Amino acid sequence: MNNRDCTKLLLTHEDILIVTHRNPDGDTAASAAALCSALKRSGRTAWVFPNRQLSRKLMRYCGAFFAPAGFQPKYVVSVDVADEKLLCEGFAGKVDLCIDHHPSNTCYAAETFVRGERASCAEIVMELMLEINADLTKEEATLLYIGLATDTGCFQYSNTDAAAFRAAAELVRAGAENVEINTLFFRKVSEARLKLESMIYNSMRFYRNGTIAVATVTLEMLRQAGAEEDDLDDLAGLAGRCENSRVNITIREKEDGSCRVSVRSFRGVDSSAICAVFGGGGHAMAAGCTVKGSPEHVREELVRATERHWS
Amino acid sequence: MNNRDCTKLLLTHEDILIVTHRNPDGDTAASAAALCSALKRSGRTAWVFPNRQLSRKLMRYCGAFFAPAGFQPKYVVSVDVADEKLLCEGFAGKVDLCIDHHPSNTCYAAETFVRGERASCAEIVMELMLEINADLTKEEATLLYIGLATDTGCFQYSNTDAAAFRAAAELVRAGAENVEINTLFFRKVSEARLKLESMIYNSMRFYRNGTIAVATVTLEMLRQAGAEEDDLDDLAGLAGRCENSRVNITIREKEDGSCRVSVRSFRGVDSSAICAVFGGGGHAMAAGCTVKGSPEHVREELVRATERHWS
Repeated sequence: MNNRDCTKLLLTHEDILIVTHRNPDGDTAASAAALCSALKRSGRTAWVFPNRQLSRKLMRYCGAFFAPAGFQPKYVVSVDVADEKLLCEGFAGKVDLCIDHHPSNTCYAAETFVRGERASCAEIVMELMLEINADLTKEEATLLYIGLATDTGCFQYSNTDAAAFRAAAELVRAGAENVEINTLFFRKVSEARLKLESMIYNSMRFYRNGTIAVATVTLEMLRQAGAEEDDLDDLAGLAGRCENSRVNITIREKEDGSCRVSVRSFRGVDSSAICAVFGGGGHAMAAGCTVKGSPEHVREELVRATERHWS
Repeated sequence: MNNRDCTKLLLTHEDILIVTHRNPDGDTAASAAALCSALKRSGRTAWVFPNRQLSRKLMRYCGAFFAPAGFQPKYVVSVDVADEKLLCEGFAGKVDLCIDHHPSNTCYAAETFVRGERASCAEIVMELMLEINADLTKEEATLLYIGLATDTGCFQYSNTDAAAFRAAAELVRAGAENVEINTLFFRKVSEARLKLESMIYNSMRFYRNGTIAVATVTLEMLRQAGAEEDDLDDLAGLAGRCENSRVNITIREKEDGSCRVSVRSFRGVDSSAICAVFGGGGHAMAAGCTVKGSPEHVREELVRATERHWS
């Protein structure tokens, strides 16, 4: 299937519902809203499934595209959803067309359009939208920029290739409010988040000449900072800011007396092997596990397991 | 003067010395090194003036292009230097060609090539280099990426336009090590810097419902963190992370019993007017002043002046 085939599929259907994945990120939410806008402009009835898990920031840009109560779709399109298990409840077995950029896509839909080389689903949707209407509105460009910028960590992640930069150039040319989006999604945080970061950086401990960095987030810290769910984005990334660290461990205390552990590592250390010691798993560069005990106890256990794995 | 005229000027001269500005940033240092590389590849003798103020990170990429002792230049080119006063000592009145992107350039050189619409000098130098050699080496692309990425705050600042993104696409296509540069310049910091950020976030005070945010950096904090000069980049930007703040004030204690104050504000508040109260100055959105007294005293004074200016 190419861009034209996929566009034809979309345009030969009516009453389209676009669905996002659970724990929605900027790419799934904003790509869905942008595609919805383009279909509406081409004269179709189209809505986005009201995924109530959207963050406040994403709601502000995508909420206007949520389907009204009682909308009966005749065609269901998923965007940025690699696996049926990640769909919001009730959509398994019901997706007519899946548009995605994950190479791991399980082809669960009746028809699948995957371009696994793309950094974001927004780039694929942008090309489809240019087939549908030949142009982008300022609002559409801003939505696609949200998808592209969030999935590339504002052009810092290793998936940022020449195509991602070319797409960004096209979106900014079309009027995307890139500065506002950057400020809202990457720069500004709540006072609670700043307090929490202060405590997390203060909690950091280093081992093996700084090559192992461990950050701890206790329930007491969350309470003291007054942090809410929206303040907890990518806490596991903070430990990775240390210049000498090769293994970054983030320990988050849970209510039930255990800790959720996230391990991220650079080449040469297998995060999933370290987490497997505690019954967890994941990938070589990012893995997780849950360990019983206090944060201090869990820290000792994790550092010991990391040192044993390393040597 | 267009790209071709500027290239011709460069190629009709020999023994070229490229000079950078004082307090060198990534754009001046890496643009100079990249241009030097292209001139060398075209058969010219060219070197970069050894500006000893370069940070360790920049030295790692640009140090190899520093002129050897005793090099006698016949043609001096400045890169990213808006004003003669910003040149390293000894170059006033001696610049044959100035290549720059600052609209405020004072035309101090014998010939001047300014493109004031560009976000970075690296983009201008890239175009000249493509005229000189028709291609970029991987090393040259990486150097130009350093200039472009540092001057746009890794594509977050308001100067990031479609042309900047198009240049980034071209540089990544040419092999620029963008991920390594992003990690080194934007992501990784020293343990001392993390400790210092922890203390700065902890020091923050908010006024007028969080619309005024004040960060304090004391000598004791710098000592406790073990911070060196390289750890102090853009401290004035930290206060601006608070989502509700419209005026961000950073107070840095000095050895002589006074404090250096940096004020940054959004539309509607004039930073330079606030700083003028204390004999300082600057622009509407970023200004500075020096105020006698302890950090606590200076904080009170600044908050009072800001509230008075606002109402």
